[in-house]
Amino acid sequence: MTQLPEFLENPGGTRGAIMSATYAALCKHGYSDLTIQRIGDEFSKSKSLLYHHYDSKDELLLDFLEFMLDEIEGQIPAYQNGGVDDHIEEIVDQTFGFGDAATSTEFTQAVVELRSQAAHDDDYREYFSRSDRFIRKHIAHTIRSGIEQGVFQEVDPQQTAALFQNVFLGTMVLRVTNNDEEVLEDSRAAFERYVREYLLVEA
Amino acid sequence: MTQLPEFLENPGGTRGAIMSATYAALCKHGYSDLTIQRIGDEFSKSKSLLYHHYDSKDELLLDFLEFMLDEIEGQIPAYQNGGVDDHIEEIVDQTFGFGDAATSTEFTQAVVELRSQAAHDDDYREYFSRSDRFIRKHIAHTIRSGIEQGVFQEVDPQQTAALFQNVFLGTMVLRVTNNDEEVLEDSRAAFERYVREYLLVEA
Repeated sequence: MTQLPEFLENPGGTRGAIMSATYAALCKHGYSDLTIQRIGDEFSKSKSLLYHHYDSKDELLLDFLEFMLDEIEGQIPAYQNGGVDDHIEEIVDQTFGFGDAATSTEFTQAVVELRSQAAHDDDYREYFSRSDRFIRKHIAHTIRSGIEQGVFQEVDPQQTAALFQNVFLGTMVLRVTNNDEEVLEDSRAAFERYVREYLLVEA
Repeated sequence: MTQLPEFLENPGGTRGAIMSATYAALCKHGYSDLTIQRIGDEFSKSKSLLYHHYDSKDELLLDFLEFMLDEIEGQIPAYQNGGVDDHIEEIVDQTFGFGDAATSTEFTQAVVELRSQAAHDDDYREYFSRSDRFIRKHIAHTIRSGIEQGVFQEVDPQQTAALFQNVFLGTMVLRVTNNDEEVLEDSRAAFERYVREYLLVEA
């Protein structure tokens, strides 16, 4: 059975229930084999509700992506309690798919497929541009805080955040499209060394 | 009209002609909308040859990817004439989709779609694992040579090559799935600074 993320376990209202069903169906079938019918199979309420709310699979999936982005945006403030150097470590962990917020392989596979839709679909590209921008802004903010606190070196926050995003996207794709586990381990080691020697101020 | 890479302009034999047609059709239709029929539309010889050689679109595309990998493997030695520091610059250029070997946006879109097939198809994943391994090996070799020549610092060649690959993959996906041009420019600036300050020995 699909392990749902905590916020999808008991979602409120019809939309929440649709979102949980979509998450489960995406993990089970991937993007290509997904149909509204199959999302309906994971849905506890009447399937006709799905057809009532959405005209197509992509319309539903774009709404699902919006829902996920809102969720991520809501969770971000909770991260900002600890020190900024702990937080950058957490970002590195997440970048390489580890840590508390680790998503399942099945969901990562689905996200990579959804992302590739953006190669020929403006609505998906618009969405990913927006969610990328949000993540970049958050990382740049973390780096800026670190510089102000004297924990990070005087790097360019925006450029560094863009490189983090770039690496994050690369690891996500590598994780599900390459069998060699050492690639991610090696890349992580090199990136951690970069963060340690280039971003952090020597203690 | 699709601009073919030089080596596909006058390919030898039936397989070469099929590969040229596949390249053109991929650029025109992308992966999802590609059919053997549409590859046939770009093919100068009898379409029945396509059906004779390949049972499915994916079988043809996997052969096309093999063909491209052979081509890349054949081109690599030509790079190794200049200095190793010039060559690493060239690799950075290619990583960010610039330079002589720059591929068209259409082809990059198609490659990103093909890559996402590897999220649920073992044959594609096997192929990309192999081609990634080849590219990593080449970059690691370049870095190792640079260290021996005293041009590069004593980094771990394999780990650093994995990070290059990771960044390369991330830029490829960003290029065709994100509308904000500054992401790539920013990431490139940060990565060039990494190469300058962390990889190259100060002159």
